[in-house]
Amino acid sequence: MSGAPFLGVLGGMGPLASAQFMLRLTLLTPAERDQDHLPALLWSDPRIPDRTAARLAGGEDPLPWLLRGIAGLEAAGCGAIAIPCNTAHGWYEAMQAATPLPILHIVDAAAEDLARQGVASGRVGLLATAGTLAMRLYQPRLEARGYSVITPDEAEMRELVSPGIALVKANRVAEAYAPLAEAATRLKARGAAAVVLGCTEIPLGIQAGPSAEIGLPLVDTIDALALASLRWAGK
Amino acid sequence: MSGAPFLGVLGGMGPLASAQFMLRLTLLTPAERDQDHLPALLWSDPRIPDRTAARLAGGEDPLPWLLRGIAGLEAAGCGAIAIPCNTAHGWYEAMQAATPLPILHIVDAAAEDLARQGVASGRVGLLATAGTLAMRLYQPRLEARGYSVITPDEAEMRELVSPGIALVKANRVAEAYAPLAEAATRLKARGAAAVVLGCTEIPLGIQAGPSAEIGLPLVDTIDALALASLRWAGK
Repeated sequence: MSGAPFLGVLGGMGPLASAQFMLRLTLLTPAERDQDHLPALLWSDPRIPDRTAARLAGGEDPLPWLLRGIAGLEAAGCGAIAIPCNTAHGWYEAMQAATPLPILHIVDAAAEDLARQGVASGRVGLLATAGTLAMRLYQPRLEARGYSVITPDEAEMRELVSPGIALVKANRVAEAYAPLAEAATRLKARGAAAVVLGCTEIPLGIQAGPSAEIGLPLVDTIDALALASLRWAGK
Repeated sequence: MSGAPFLGVLGGMGPLASAQFMLRLTLLTPAERDQDHLPALLWSDPRIPDRTAARLAGGEDPLPWLLRGIAGLEAAGCGAIAIPCNTAHGWYEAMQAATPLPILHIVDAAAEDLARQGVASGRVGLLATAGTLAMRLYQPRLEARGYSVITPDEAEMRELVSPGIALVKANRVAEAYAPLAEAATRLKARGAAAVVLGCTEIPLGIQAGPSAEIGLPLVDTIDALALASLRWAGK
């Protein structure tokens, strides 16, 4: 009754994205029966204060809540931690300093997925929360790998991306498609060779419509982090 | 940073069903933002020995694994436990005896969903694992509420239901539809006014095809248990 350690999943940010992460982690696993799958523990705490509000508007600090989840996952016997929320990675260094467990970084997972999809360098678009953009979570890590990053302008964030994310958090995924697809299409028009969906709500909205019509490789950061988790587990 | 206790979810049986439970729990919650959702902790351990094999074929006893999960959920501060696996409820009394936390019974949740769908009494069909049928998990609880229960015969279990469940556990949900829908249709022909999908893999297969064509109320035990969990949380 021992064996491989659990993958710890710090979630609830939002809860739909972390449930989808568990679903995709399962579907992406080569498996013939239950026992071939990865043991995983999902700490889904949707009460964790909003990450973008904390960074941009003086909202409540999420770090104590994040550290509580990490301590809980560590106490339960996890061997690594995945966090299916891009914006929460703004607190990555503080979280990693608080635990000996490796925390798989979602931006590295996204970069590995760009390469897997054949986009090895050049200009890529990034759709993300205002918090993730303000913290520049993606730029240093992607630029170190030879990419340049373009992002929506302030009006596009206000009119397209932020409302699209909010619709997913309110369970209105079908309505989220149009504004998010429009934002991706504008990045394509500005020369992006691929678009990273750098907020885990965004793929849920994009998949609710005819996303193939956007006509670009899209990096789903839920899938990218699930694939990184399977690599950690040797699957 | 305190507040409502977590819902504990003892899962991994199978992992796709427990991920789907988390997704449905989220989508069935009236919510406008992350913070309106239920905090939940999913203990997904797909290594828990097969419940049907344990009951019918002398396979390894899952009870120590189930109790380890319950102890982990209790230690992490959960306030109640939901188990999105029907067959595991064959060990319900031993699990409930081991914890002061209430364990929401999936058969009671299914009965409440029959009533919600307007089926208040009479003959209902049950699709489930051979283990659940052998343990008669449904009959006493449904008969006490005025239902009579009909089930597939041995050939239907061998040729339709058991293969359908195995296909879902191997991530082959689309192929699972035909045999499972055929089994449901045969119960309808024998007079069932509704069919309880009494194994959490079965709704995943049934939803992969045109299930409305079956032409009967279907009780999805994943949704039924999610609704019971939301009632527990006062949502």
